[in-house]
Amino acid sequence: MRNNENNLYWHKHSVTTKERWKSYGYKSCVIWFTGLSAAGKSTLANVLSKELHIMEVKNYVLDGDNIRHGLNKNLGFSHDDRKENIRRIGEVAKLFVDAGLIAMAAFISPYREDRSNVRRLLGNGQFIEVFVKCPVSECEKRDPKGIYKRARAGEIKEFTGVSAPYEEPENPEIILKTDEMSLEKCIKTLLNYLRENKYIQDSKYINGTNVKS
Amino acid sequence: MRNNENNLYWHKHSVTTKERWKSYGYKSCVIWFTGLSAAGKSTLANVLSKELHIMEVKNYVLDGDNIRHGLNKNLGFSHDDRKENIRRIGEVAKLFVDAGLIAMAAFISPYREDRSNVRRLLGNGQFIEVFVKCPVSECEKRDPKGIYKRARAGEIKEFTGVSAPYEEPENPEIILKTDEMSLEKCIKTLLNYLRENKYIQDSKYINGTNVKS
Repeated sequence: MRNNENNLYWHKHSVTTKERWKSYGYKSCVIWFTGLSAAGKSTLANVLSKELHIMEVKNYVLDGDNIRHGLNKNLGFSHDDRKENIRRIGEVAKLFVDAGLIAMAAFISPYREDRSNVRRLLGNGQFIEVFVKCPVSECEKRDPKGIYKRARAGEIKEFTGVSAPYEEPENPEIILKTDEMSLEKCIKTLLNYLRENKYIQDSKYINGTNVKS
Repeated sequence: MRNNENNLYWHKHSVTTKERWKSYGYKSCVIWFTGLSAAGKSTLANVLSKELHIMEVKNYVLDGDNIRHGLNKNLGFSHDDRKENIRRIGEVAKLFVDAGLIAMAAFISPYREDRSNVRRLLGNGQFIEVFVKCPVSECEKRDPKGIYKRARAGEIKEFTGVSAPYEEPENPEIILKTDEMSLEKCIKTLLNYLRENKYIQDSKYINGTNVKS
């Protein structure tokens, strides 16, 4: 490309993640929700997303709705495909962090190794693992999509918690027991973590328009 | 999850793309730069990114640097792998548009069909194809990474423009002839397009701190 002499400084002058943080007023990271189906991962991610949006913190939720029918529609549920599923989600989450957003991922992600790989992929302190803990008996009682019923009937093979293992996180940053805690309490816990660890700043919005005491 | 009665409204209350547009003050889209190696795609994307950043328009550049070594590191250069490469990039760009950012993609993307597939994937008006047009002789003269030389020596097989086809866009939104136009002129053309088509608003920044008349 023709450059005027005084414009050579332009070449490969990309915006760095730190420049983004400085201009946006918060630090990007991945909040990775893991847990059984119906434990509450997607609800938590979407409510937190709304809260952050109100606080003018740019964020985005990656979940089955926008990943399984798009980027990962050519993947099934074999062990290898589950591994590749989580790998790709981790890579996309990393791009969002690089772009300066708080990325939330809401996937069962049953294998410790796959989650560790994503943690390693991200920079120091950029991966916040949230164990959405709920007994399978309670998840089965909720069963909003009737999938536990189908799994018990043998219609779905290798269903996490029924016929496939779920490996609990050993050192998650946050544990939310959704059978004991209210949604409000869970969201407050998440926001407090982000505030205390300087991802987001103290703000008049911290107690939110939606989150009530 | 336990919900207090008055909090049921919370469930699946995700932030929509239109809500994001309203709050951010601009419309998200994909700007897809296509053209030969060394035509100027990545430089244009990165300089535009910087300009938009100054204008407080959130944006992100997808290019070989952050895609080929991450999300698509398990893909080679066969026809099928090139297809899957562009498909995944299109899906990721769509997620960024959904998140309210202007996503820029800078890839050779030599096949018309692959680019059409990405266009179809995006909503109406969300795909802006920019043909970064430069004769192969000029690209070869620039050859910043010495890859044309290696391709001519037969070290790189199926190299676009040398031993593999490049299918020119038939109806791109924008054509930038980088062997004739200065970088400033190219960037002004892009910013004017975004302004005239209401992606971004008129602003005191429109003539930028970097883009000089």
